[in-house]
Amino acid sequence: MTLSPTRRRAGTTSAPVVPSRGRLLPLGLDEVRITGGPWARRQDVNGTATLSHIEHWLEREGWLGNFDAAVRGTLPEDRRGREFSDSEVYKLLEAMAWELGRRPDDQLERRFAAIVRRVAAAQEPDGYVGTMFGRPGQQPRYSDLEWGHELYCQGHLMQAAVARVRTGHRDDLIVEVARRSADHVCATFGRDANAGVCGHPEIEVGLAELGRALDEPRYLEQARLFVERRGRGVLADIEWGRSYYQDDVPVRDATVFRGHAVRANYLAAGAIDVAVEHGDDALLASVTAQWHRTQARRTYVTGGQGSHHQDEAFGDDWVLPPDRAYSETCAGVGSVMVSWRLLLAEADPVYADAVERTLLNVVATSPSHDGRAFFYANTLHQRVPAEHASVDEISKRAEASLRAPWFEVSCCPPNVARTFASLAAYVATVDDGGLQLHQYAPCEIRTSLPDGSPVAVDVVTRYPDDGRVEISVLEAPDADWTLTLRVPAWSSEAFVAVDGAAPERVGPGSVRVSGARSGSVVTLELDVAPRFVAADPRIDAIRGCVAVQRGPEVLCLESVDLAPAGLDDVSAVAVDVSTPPRRTEDGVVVRVAAVRHDEAPWPYAPAAETPAERPVLGPATDVTLVPYHDWANRGPSTMRVWLPVL
Amino acid sequence: MTLSPTRRRAGTTSAPVVPSRGRLLPLGLDEVRITGGPWARRQDVNGTATLSHIEHWLEREGWLGNFDAAVRGTLPEDRRGREFSDSEVYKLLEAMAWELGRRPDDQLERRFAAIVRRVAAAQEPDGYVGTMFGRPGQQPRYSDLEWGHELYCQGHLMQAAVARVRTGHRDDLIVEVARRSADHVCATFGRDANAGVCGHPEIEVGLAELGRALDEPRYLEQARLFVERRGRGVLADIEWGRSYYQDDVPVRDATVFRGHAVRANYLAAGAIDVAVEHGDDALLASVTAQWHRTQARRTYVTGGQGSHHQDEAFGDDWVLPPDRAYSETCAGVGSVMVSWRLLLAEADPVYADAVERTLLNVVATSPSHDGRAFFYANTLHQRVPAEHASVDEISKRAEASLRAPWFEVSCCPPNVARTFASLAAYVATVDDGGLQLHQYAPCEIRTSLPDGSPVAVDVVTRYPDDGRVEISVLEAPDADWTLTLRVPAWSSEAFVAVDGAAPERVGPGSVRVSGARSGSVVTLELDVAPRFVAADPRIDAIRGCVAVQRGPEVLCLESVDLAPAGLDDVSAVAVDVSTPPRRTEDGVVVRVAAVRHDEAPWPYAPAAETPAERPVLGPATDVTLVPYHDWANRGPSTMRVWLPVL
Repeated sequence: MTLSPTRRRAGTTSAPVVPSRGRLLPLGLDEVRITGGPWARRQDVNGTATLSHIEHWLEREGWLGNFDAAVRGTLPEDRRGREFSDSEVYKLLEAMAWELGRRPDDQLERRFAAIVRRVAAAQEPDGYVGTMFGRPGQQPRYSDLEWGHELYCQGHLMQAAVARVRTGHRDDLIVEVARRSADHVCATFGRDANAGVCGHPEIEVGLAELGRALDEPRYLEQARLFVERRGRGVLADIEWGRSYYQDDVPVRDATVFRGHAVRANYLAAGAIDVAVEHGDDALLASVTAQWHRTQARRTYVTGGQGSHHQDEAFGDDWVLPPDRAYSETCAGVGSVMVSWRLLLAEADPVYADAVERTLLNVVATSPSHDGRAFFYANTLHQRVPAEHASVDEISKRAEASLRAPWFEVSCCPPNVARTFASLAAYVATVDDGGLQLHQYAPCEIRTSLPDGSPVAVDVVTRYPDDGRVEISVLEAPDADWTLTLRVPAWSSEAFVAVDGAAPERVGPGSVRVSGARSGSVVTLELDVAPRFVAADPRIDAIRGCVAVQRGPEVLCLESVDLAPAGLDDVSAVAVDVSTPPRRTEDGVVVRVAAVRHDEAPWPYAPAAETPAERPVLGPATDVTLVPYHDWANRGPSTMRVWLPVL
Repeated sequence: MTLSPTRRRAGTTSAPVVPSRGRLLPLGLDEVRITGGPWARRQDVNGTATLSHIEHWLEREGWLGNFDAAVRGTLPEDRRGREFSDSEVYKLLEAMAWELGRRPDDQLERRFAAIVRRVAAAQEPDGYVGTMFGRPGQQPRYSDLEWGHELYCQGHLMQAAVARVRTGHRDDLIVEVARRSADHVCATFGRDANAGVCGHPEIEVGLAELGRALDEPRYLEQARLFVERRGRGVLADIEWGRSYYQDDVPVRDATVFRGHAVRANYLAAGAIDVAVEHGDDALLASVTAQWHRTQARRTYVTGGQGSHHQDEAFGDDWVLPPDRAYSETCAGVGSVMVSWRLLLAEADPVYADAVERTLLNVVATSPSHDGRAFFYANTLHQRVPAEHASVDEISKRAEASLRAPWFEVSCCPPNVARTFASLAAYVATVDDGGLQLHQYAPCEIRTSLPDGSPVAVDVVTRYPDDGRVEISVLEAPDADWTLTLRVPAWSSEAFVAVDGAAPERVGPGSVRVSGARSGSVVTLELDVAPRFVAADPRIDAIRGCVAVQRGPEVLCLESVDLAPAGLDDVSAVAVDVSTPPRRTEDGVVVRVAAVRHDEAPWPYAPAAETPAERPVLGPATDVTLVPYHDWANRGPSTMRVWLPVL
């Protein structure tokens, strides 16, 4: 498709992604306020607990102190943390910036400024920022593009600056720091300079967004150079092949996301930015096709991506065993970045479905209810109860325990935090014709169309517990306009009604309501009845199983919920699919039967002697499922998303 | 159980494992000669191609040259290869020694001696051998017990020496080198010295066997110390936890094999040696119980072990997805080491079943038909055709290609070689009452019982192609004696006949034939008809699938065999289990139907819309399966062992 340049709206949009072309225009945190429901709770916990939790650990582990050590001149001796630890500081700054954008807070403002001062003090005269390379006793700058993460870190610095620019602090110190860093990167990696790329993509989105925010085409051009260079064996070959960091095939020639799942998504996001800004429709079409195949063949039912532990990478098509599903939290964040950009570019509601699925079932699964512990990987089948993580120790291993307060590689906590703080940006968009609602949460939207006409709606809903979404139009453009509502593909049926009119059945995708006037109430009814879901049989590892979904949420069976039935492990039951899952006061229940397992010295036997259906012990019984994102909040347990069919 | 000390037989037994107690006594390569059939072919290829292939690569990669560099004093500058590369040299020496033991060859003898001289020249005055540690510019000796592999390497040196002692070269230089190394190890790690253990078990079996071979109780005691120390957090905690190297739980307190699958098996083998030699029946019982649970819950249908790529480790119980099954070749070798030791100790034929399964379906799968390329990992489901490995380059990654000539971590080729060269040792044993046949191959057995009575039998068979095994008794003891034949558990029925008598049906386990006289012919008939095999449903990843086995062999579907049916990928078919697999001139065929896959943008859908049975396209057709150990010998292909049921 060809994107026509869209008229910008007046002023700055307070959102992480603000392309200059695309079918849809994003709205900012000042235009969309989530006022209740689960997303508001997540944002509250994020703002009140997670941000300070992260700051505490960054200080405690010395990752913030690295910047002070740089100023003192005591690097490398005093260097703490891994090569990418600077980036966690920047992700926290980005999260704080969005949080301040949605809810000003003097104390948080002072904490933010204090961190920025420490970072700024460590910036080198030529604009380089980084505590790991380049000083006497350290490796030279950019001497290890494969693993050094120097450009990755600076990309995150730029995203933090973007958050500041977009929330009304264009003159902030961090913006100046990021601008000088970006100038340094352009000077160092420009067309006639170092022809390298970073082993971990991120600088591409960082430069693209900073270029957009500051109207600086040089940054957009540098992002384009990084995207174009990649895939030609620029980086060294490694044990897992150059596909690990997507340096095996040029971005535009690839057919699917592959290699390290976070890297793959970050690169795709950067490539979309470049394609959109440079009018490169062929590149956009290529990334779109890659996204579709990745969704169709390489994504867990939760939206999670990456099935390999070894290299945190995508497997081949259909390699999605729930056992040790890796589904890294940050790959979920990256996937939201990609889907959201494609939604803005192409307006296809399939992308909003993916954003919702991934936010709810991957990103929201990571943090504990108190916002102070996180899953790094998100398995779909826990066979042995994991131990509690130490509340006081850094976790060395992605999947060694229940949610952990901090990791040696601690990208996930601040990545979740910056996503949650900016969550309102994913709710709605506008275009010349009207307003589009993509995600459903109680919220107030106060915005304007590109022609300046004000639009204001309030959304009232108990979604996703309930499928009813009421949109009250408080202010409508004078001219004809359209309110577009996403109808998620999972809703078996959907109805829309305007004011008192009879509900009209609508198909999946989106429904357009035209000409609603101030005072109108548009009601969308989605079917959030729980349902059994089965998989393409090419995902061999879940043959003969079903999952249960309720609206956008994936549910799971957790062993603690088997106790009332006198059972203690999720392997002890199979599900009776002749009884549909149903809602009760306790939640969604399914009918299961206890199954008997024969203990044999060797688990393989002539097929005739292995009954396809396992013997049932005792009467069928109902068990309650919990949302997957809520699992493991009640202590060690076994858990499974995919339930064998009786 | 309590093992009573067994009377030794006169002379040296030319076998890798010669315990001083146990239910069964091993026979040597000079007592059992495999005369034909697939094992003889494997041994021929091993002797004529693989040994020189390995020597070539050890020389080419400089791993042999490391010993020369040590002598020259140019280490560490000239050091090549990984920290454990010395061990590959010792494994080759062991393989050569067994090869010389079964088939004297002057040229091979000279090559063997030349390598030994280079190793011996590098031995330090205090007996230490190793090219990676301890010299100026290298890390101090034993400063990295977790990863340094110094004791592991010396353990392999000892096993090479054992092969020499047991094949009549007690005065060989390598025996002296190993003895001095063992003395050094005892002095360094004895009761009142360094209380460490090696991160990779192997020194335990090395010391135990050298102690047996040289009648040196100090070595056996040192092996005991190493086994007893382990499991108490002697080694550092690492990313994957101390279970990686079995330092999480004392050996006798463990309940299952866990962590790195090669390490787990090598340690278990050493623990059995220690238990047997020191009369520690509790330790033996513990390892036996661990073996049983590991077989019942953590072993692939091929006998392969270890499902994790990341840490080459066992997964939790039932985590055995065929996708990316790791099943490292060396874990198979280690598993044979363990099962064989348990068979000698306990005489239970279940261990011989395991030895056969693992040799045939894991160890024999590794080498190509020409013996010059190897699988390091042995997946059970190849979804995308792997590329050819470079014949001229070292492979960095265990599963990156088809069989590769050499690896950065190249344990598998020499481990296969030493196993194949000593294969005859696994065929038969004796005890006070007679002779036991455990593996069936055309062979000549010329031995004696512990009381000195000579026994000679010839075995004629086309096993495993055919289930008929004829044992001609050429010489029988005067006293009453018993010929015991293993009846594999997979044989649905079995018959035994002595001379012209009517065949007698016998159950699985073993059958004892008493009093056969010289000239008698004992005939065993096993059922090698191909059969469908299904799995315990707790191995969730293969629910709804069957495998096909023929006798001891696991078969697989390879895409090249789908071409006659006009299909090109193994995902394109499901198997009709109502038609049993059957033999034809081309091999075993099964009836399959092509299945249609709906291409959907999202692979999960309401269960009612996802038919349990996939639509059949066109008429059912027969396809030929190949033995799993033969796969990937006809170029890149897709392959699967577990076939979905139609």
